Parts: sequence; structure tokens; C-alpha cells
Amino acid sequence: MRRLARGCADAVTEFKTALAETADRVTVALDALLPRADGPEKRLNSAMRYAALGPGKRLRPFLTIECGRLVDADERALLRAACAVECIHAYSLIHDDLPSMDNDDLRRGRPTVHIAYDEATAILAGDALQTQAFEIICDEETSASPSAAMNLARRLADVAGARGMVGGQMLDMAIEAAGEGEVDIGLITRCQRMKTGALIAFSAEAGAIIVNAEREVRTALEGFAHDLGLCFQIVDDLLDAEGDENLTGKRTHKDADQGKTTFVSILGVEGAREHARHLAVQAKEHLNVFGDDAELLKACVDYILERQS
Amino acid sequence: MRRLARGCADAVTEFKTALAETADRVTVALDALLPRADGPEKRLNSAMRYAALGPGKRLRPFLTIECGRLVDADERALLRAACAVECIHAYSLIHDDLPSMDNDDLRRGRPTVHIAYDEATAILAGDALQTQAFEIICDEETSASPSAAMNLARRLADVAGARGMVGGQMLDMAIEAAGEGEVDIGLITRCQRMKTGALIAFSAEAGAIIVNAEREVRTALEGFAHDLGLCFQIVDDLLDAEGDENLTGKRTHKDADQGKTTFVSILGVEGAREHARHLAVQAKEHLNVFGDDAELLKACVDYILERQS
Repeated sequence: MRRLARGCADAVTEFKTALAETADRVTVALDALLPRADGPEKRLNSAMRYAALGPGKRLRPFLTIECGRLVDADERALLRAACAVECIHAYSLIHDDLPSMDNDDLRRGRPTVHIAYDEATAILAGDALQTQAFEIICDEETSASPSAAMNLARRLADVAGARGMVGGQMLDMAIEAAGEGEVDIGLITRCQRMKTGALIAFSAEAGAIIVNAEREVRTALEGFAHDLGLCFQIVDDLLDAEGDENLTGKRTHKDADQGKTTFVSILGVEGAREHARHLAVQAKEHLNVFGDDAELLKACVDYILERQS
Repeated sequence: MRRLARGCADAVTEFKTALAETADRVTVALDALLPRADGPEKRLNSAMRYAALGPGKRLRPFLTIECGRLVDADERALLRAACAVECIHAYSLIHDDLPSMDNDDLRRGRPTVHIAYDEATAILAGDALQTQAFEIICDEETSASPSAAMNLARRLADVAGARGMVGGQMLDMAIEAAGEGEVDIGLITRCQRMKTGALIAFSAEAGAIIVNAEREVRTALEGFAHDLGLCFQIVDDLLDAEGDENLTGKRTHKDADQGKTTFVSILGVEGAREHARHLAVQAKEHLNVFGDDAELLKACVDYILERQS
């Protein structure tokens, strides 16, 4: 386990350095795992690489690696699990950005995949990135044992499929299409848990699944991921309402323009900010069971609360 | 193992009965495995069910179950593996039919998913069906052991992803866009092996992977699947060139209208038919190692060669 230097003047600065280091490691590992862009079908592989290797904070892979270190999971297994998480995340962004879904042309400061390539290639690149995630997870190098790999793959399927991320995106579009007053905070919360919360939870729990950690540890990580995920989404809504497009690297003010019900439209800007702060405090409390080992993750919570992009 | 009654006057009739029985069993099992169409995201689940439970020959699940019986794999495990294969097949059909891909409005005699629902729902239903396949495979009930489940999942990822089915669809679109004379039979064959051959191979090999069968058996099933898959594709091209839309349940004459290079355009109708016949003979020869137990599968080869839909 890695500990933060005692008396560190600025934990968030140390966190940002660690985040950048993790992002680099994940990008290098993904580069080796993804198919080369050659052969007659190279357009597909090129689009997969464009989406997965492009700029990105790699917050989910960071959670996988840092939470996995708390339970002493193997570093190489964690890096591979982190790559699988990033493949799922990248695939979901490609498909969410499509014209028939959110119709976004800008992502991480670059043209979205269907703009940079074309729509068919974008759909296929997303499809193949999902497959790639399971290919990485179901490899003996990603887990301590075949049964751990199977548990990991089953949990990934659970958070990524109809009961998780894909179901959440369906719900998100239903919320967007709904009239004013038809959507309450319960539905918004369900949508967040499925669309973004579930994959964040997997990211935080992967290491514990790999080492088959005891129940108490799993519960702490689940609670942490739950509060962090909700906090993350509320800040996302705040950034859409108040953020700067030059900083976020994606279009803002989309929710208000579309009259979409969000945490901000229901709670108001100040209410939403207060709720996010409360969740950040709770998320950090879940980590107390890990003592000083969790300082970096606590700094991550503060960063997510204060982020501008 | 099941044997055909000796002296059976019409093996193909017996095969058709067995195929219909398998189709029913797979539909019932899939119905139980797929998420119920309720909750606020029910539109997604409904579209998944429309695609996976609709009419279909279930040839791939039939191969999984019958080839698996040759190696004495557990019946329940085979049925689950067959369901996973059908989920991958259904997902690929949904995405291939999309307006930005093959732009088909008719499939198995019914409106395609993006026509019956909408484009976004179709993309998400395909996405979730892929996840569902891995969820089914990575369950302990699908395999004799966790390591067999892992091998099965890895092989499925291999045939379904960028090096398999998805890469093949990308290649198919490149072939469609290519000018006359730019595509040779080598490229067409590579495309077929990736787009349709790989999943057919998985269907035939799944049982052998589940029981960790000896090399000789694996090789026979691989050879069988290879020849059968290519034969299947050539007949598909023949059906597009000469088939009756009322029988096939999908649009025909698409290849010729689009000037697409196919086995038929390269070999001619008679040459393609001769090649398909030759492959059917070869496919059956691979099964000789299984003696009388393989009679039903041999009848399946004849059926695929003679099919009108």
C-alpha cells in the first residue's frame, strides 16, 4: 500500500500528480491491449484507439487502482481491470454521443467519433470496445483465480447492461423527453445510479472482487462509490448549468436548453451544491476504515467536488 | 447422446423437427434469462425481447446443442451457451440493420428494431444484448468449472469483437464501398470468416470448450464449422441473388443493386453453387470421427445447402 507523505501541504496537488501518472500508465497499457490499426478493417481499430486512447482524466481507472491498493490486489491485475473499465466508459461515450442519442459533436475537446470517422464506424467501435472489456477481464492475468475472474466479469455485465449503464441511458432519454413535472428526484437518482453510478461502483469494487475481500471492506467501498458517484453526477449537472465550455471540453447549457429535469433544476444551484458537499463528506467517512492509506482517495473526492471539467 | 432412428427415410425431416424443438427450448430459456419489460426503462427491455425472442431458425443454438452432445457436455450448460450465442447474433442483426449500416427495414418477416422502436433504442438494445451474452457465459451454471467458463468467455470475445464479427462487419461495408475489381475472393473469404464464420465456429466449439475436450475432437469441430460457415455464406449470397423475398423474410437482390462483390459475383451462380456443394461434402467428412452420433448434424449441412430462407 502507498501512503501519502505526512504533513503534505496540498493533498489535492499530490492527488493530481497521482491521477496524471495513472492516466499515463492506463493509456500505455490500453495501447498494448487494443488491436493495431492495420489490415483491411483498420478504420475500426483506428476509431477504437481514437476513442480509448484520447485525452481523458481516467478517473474510473484511478478509482480501480487506488481502491484495489487498499485491499492489496496485484498491481498488474488492477491495471488490466482499470483498462477494461476505461473500454466500457469509452464505448458508452461513443454511443451516447451518436446523432440518434445525445447528438454531441465535441468530447474531451475533440470531435466525437462519429464526426471524426462516421456513424457506422462509431457504432462498431463502441461495440468492439465493449467486447474488448470482457476479453481483458476474462483473462487469467486479470484475476487471482478463474473464479475471481468469473465474479468480476459477472459484476461487469451487471453494471454495464440493461440493469445498469445501458438501462440508465435509456432512462436518461426518457427523462429528456418527459414533460415538466413528470420527473421527480427519485427517478433522477435511479437514472444516475444506473447510468454512471454502477460503473463507478464497479471501478471501486474491482480490486476487492479480485482478492475476494471480506464483507466489511466490500461494504465500505460500496458506500464510498455510491456517494462519490452521486456527488460526481450532481457536479456534472452543475458544470452543464454553469461551466465553461473551454474548460469542460464538451458542450454546456444543454440541459437547460432542452428543458431537461436534472438535480440542478429540482434542487436549484445552491441546493445542488450543498447536496454534493454533503455527499463528499459521507464518501470520505466510508474510507475511514482504511486509515491513512485512503488519503489519496479522500483528495480525489475533494477534487471531484471542486472540478471545473 | 441422441441417435437418429436407423433406416430413417428422410433425415432432413427428422432434422427439421429437431431444429424446431431446439428453437422452442432456446426461446423459452431466453425468455427467462432476458430482463422483464417493466420499470421506467422498459422500452429497452421490450426491444431486446422483440429482437431475441422473435421468429428465427436458431441454427447457431442448434449447432451449440448438437455439437455439445457429441462431447457429452451438460444439457443445461449447452442450453445456456446456446442462449448466449443467440444474444450475440440478435445484437449483431440489430446493429447491422441500422440506417447508417445496411439500412434494412425487414428482418425475419417483421420490421427491424429501429423501425419497430427507434434508432436510439435499437442501438441500446443491441448493446445490452451483447452484455447479456457475457453475463450468461460467465455464470457457473454455463460451465463445468470457472476456468472453462473463462475459456468460453475469452473465445466468445475473440469471435465477437474487432478480430471477429465486428471487424467483419466493418470489412463488409468497406467491400460494399469498394469499386469493381478492387475486391478479390481472398478479401471476401476473410470478411465471411470474421463476420459470420467466427460465431458459427464458436457455436460448434462451445460444448468442447465446456468439457475441455481433447485436441482431435476440437480440430474436427473446427473443420466442420469452418466449411459449414463458408457454405452458409455462399448460400446466403445465392439467396440474395435468386431468392424469394416472401420466403427469406428479408430484402433480396440487394447485393446486385448495390454492385457489391460477393461469392456469386466472382464465381457466377453455377460456380458458387458448386463451391457450396463441395464445402457441404467436406463439412460432413469432418463429422465422420463421431460415427452415427453425427447424423443429425449431417442432415443440418444438407438443409443449409438446400435452404430457401
